[in-house]
Amino acid sequence: MAAKNAFYAQSGGVTAVINASACGVIETARAHPEHIRTVYAGANGILGALHEDLIDTAAESAQTIAALRHTPGGAFGSARYKLKGLDENRAEYERLIEVFRAHDIGYFFYNGGGDSQDTAHKVSQLGESMGYPITCIGVPKTVDNDLPITDTCPGFGSVAKYTAIATREAGLDVASMAKTSTKVFILETMGRHAGWIAAASALAKDQPSDPPHVVLLPEVPLDQARFMAQVKTSVEQFGYCVVVVSEGVKTADGQFLADQGSKDAFGHVQLGGVAPTVAAMIKAELGYKYHYAIADYLQRAARHVASATDVEQAYALGKAAVELALDGHNAVMPTIVRESSAPYRWHIGQTPLETVANIEAKMPPAFIDESGFFVTPACLEYLRPLIAGEDYPPYRDGLPDYARIRGERVARRLPAFGD
Amino acid sequence: MAAKNAFYAQSGGVTAVINASACGVIETARAHPEHIRTVYAGANGILGALHEDLIDTAAESAQTIAALRHTPGGAFGSARYKLKGLDENRAEYERLIEVFRAHDIGYFFYNGGGDSQDTAHKVSQLGESMGYPITCIGVPKTVDNDLPITDTCPGFGSVAKYTAIATREAGLDVASMAKTSTKVFILETMGRHAGWIAAASALAKDQPSDPPHVVLLPEVPLDQARFMAQVKTSVEQFGYCVVVVSEGVKTADGQFLADQGSKDAFGHVQLGGVAPTVAAMIKAELGYKYHYAIADYLQRAARHVASATDVEQAYALGKAAVELALDGHNAVMPTIVRESSAPYRWHIGQTPLETVANIEAKMPPAFIDESGFFVTPACLEYLRPLIAGEDYPPYRDGLPDYARIRGERVARRLPAFGD
Repeated sequence: MAAKNAFYAQSGGVTAVINASACGVIETARAHPEHIRTVYAGANGILGALHEDLIDTAAESAQTIAALRHTPGGAFGSARYKLKGLDENRAEYERLIEVFRAHDIGYFFYNGGGDSQDTAHKVSQLGESMGYPITCIGVPKTVDNDLPITDTCPGFGSVAKYTAIATREAGLDVASMAKTSTKVFILETMGRHAGWIAAASALAKDQPSDPPHVVLLPEVPLDQARFMAQVKTSVEQFGYCVVVVSEGVKTADGQFLADQGSKDAFGHVQLGGVAPTVAAMIKAELGYKYHYAIADYLQRAARHVASATDVEQAYALGKAAVELALDGHNAVMPTIVRESSAPYRWHIGQTPLETVANIEAKMPPAFIDESGFFVTPACLEYLRPLIAGEDYPPYRDGLPDYARIRGERVARRLPAFGD
Repeated sequence: MAAKNAFYAQSGGVTAVINASACGVIETARAHPEHIRTVYAGANGILGALHEDLIDTAAESAQTIAALRHTPGGAFGSARYKLKGLDENRAEYERLIEVFRAHDIGYFFYNGGGDSQDTAHKVSQLGESMGYPITCIGVPKTVDNDLPITDTCPGFGSVAKYTAIATREAGLDVASMAKTSTKVFILETMGRHAGWIAAASALAKDQPSDPPHVVLLPEVPLDQARFMAQVKTSVEQFGYCVVVVSEGVKTADGQFLADQGSKDAFGHVQLGGVAPTVAAMIKAELGYKYHYAIADYLQRAARHVASATDVEQAYALGKAAVELALDGHNAVMPTIVRESSAPYRWHIGQTPLETVANIEAKMPPAFIDESGFFVTPACLEYLRPLIAGEDYPPYRDGLPDYARIRGERVARRLPAFGD
């Protein structure tokens, strides 16, 4: 087969290591010029394909591409944009194929979560039926760690490490001040449906008195009375209490706790603040002085303290995606297969896209302890290797020296679409 | 003079490097056994002296003391406890002197901000008048960078570095998503009265389009209309806007913006959330989708990304405090004296405690630009060397391996006080 171009796009919420996957894709493609001429990256993800807004990665130096490995965020732009079903919006899928055809694109590497794998799968099917077969390979990515089949998802190990470090550090701060100041500290983490990120804070506990003292997971409906008792016990026993709460925690009647939250200065209901809601609950019931932190994007952008394991896997999965394509595979996603936890051994596997499309993997019940306020040793054994190792970015003038792409665009060949 | 014991106490909000000062004090004292027998550390700061709750640092290994250099929080416990004036509460000061006398303590090293330097100064005066002269030396500490005379305060350089890194990293995240998702990101920093921490975020900007796009300082009363215009311009010009806001920002009528903030689920006014207040303002006026982060204690505990300059100065000031005492000085505080910014050169100076007691140093007007929404080149020149260099802690199992003290107590010799 003559060499074709490739299209690479980032999708959904970005992570500290999604660019490491991009680096893996582009460097591996560059090593196979006999099969892949140029990797075009979608400006703002899949929108770049719909609007024929393609970034010519050939214009980026080898140094810039290498630096993507240590750069957080989505260097080419990502998008929260889900293509509808084929029946509902066939025009969008057909447009993708047209753009691919116009730019002689034979490979589509889609770097995202379950939604994106679904899209890649459909593009693969449609290309076939439209007489323009295209090799579609998924590259997994999500801080939420909620993809099935793969042992873990790039992005998660780094946010897990960030969360455990934040818990340990803030815990030391609170412990030193608790005698005369803050007694309860609440750290809000991401995780709308799965508690993986909050669970990772448990790695910070070496001794029973160490934080976190309570972990609130979306998988466990909040029993407020038992929660209050747990906080009180911790303060009485250790002098303070560190609570790590997932943004997706729900009440017994299935409502998000954050949605019961506060009204802002203008009288609007303020969503997304589960930490202040929990804090107010503690203040009202127990009267303890509290502080809370909402790490928000800081947690998933924290490349300065990324997990070396996570970076390595993110790169390896990008590389594997290209290799799978060149080996003739289609409509698959490379995965992480765990061989053992201690010592940690893993290799790259693969799975058909349809097995991961639109499926959310929650924490298994065996990973949540009987109290519902902490994780089990099995969970810790699973999590520990994922945060192992440091992979510091280079620094300049005291700050991480992150890549900056030129972002040169490929000349358009088609009329505008749907604008 | 026969060797005496020393008393060391941590005071007020802790930092990423206050233990590095403790390390400097204790290691330097250990090097001079002919003058200082043992350093007793106050359990929970000055409360340890009032309640004769003294930690025997001689029971800590050299390794543990060395590890304090890379451990955040206050290893011996700190306290928000301000001794009242001598006239109002002479009994407390007299108790301190009694405890010092009972344990043959001839040196008092007080590691804190302006309040603490005031206390150290008064103890020095009272000891003299009570016939128990004690050498009182301050060790500066405050993330707020608001002590006068000294060029900077240990703790600030590291929180400045954290804030600039967080701004750069979250900025990359938001920039990649802005096309279809969050347009405005707000980072709330500490700084109730002085804007130094928020100002440090400006170090993240290398190019005009880089974040932060707006910095809100307590020194500049918020002009809401001009602020909204600034946010709108940034979104229109760059596609997104990163706002860094100091918790101490005030409205034109002098009220804390945070105090206008939200009511919690139980109807209580929720203080301390300036980020949600700013976010709600933007949503109401401009309609942009927003996210915000409140780093809270994470910022001042972030030893994992401390400034090497800050760590070095924190240690040097602890060491200098002991050396000043041994050189016969009293009622002084060692300071950082800047010789030049580029290349950065500094040495240790000293100043009488009364010159720093209870005085807050705000940002000078020349450091705030005409718009009031950013800092000047002079400010950046001042800040840049303070975040220079990385000083990573050792890691174990993917997490920073922080010191854990034994905390062995010294036997009490006096009746209880005031319990």
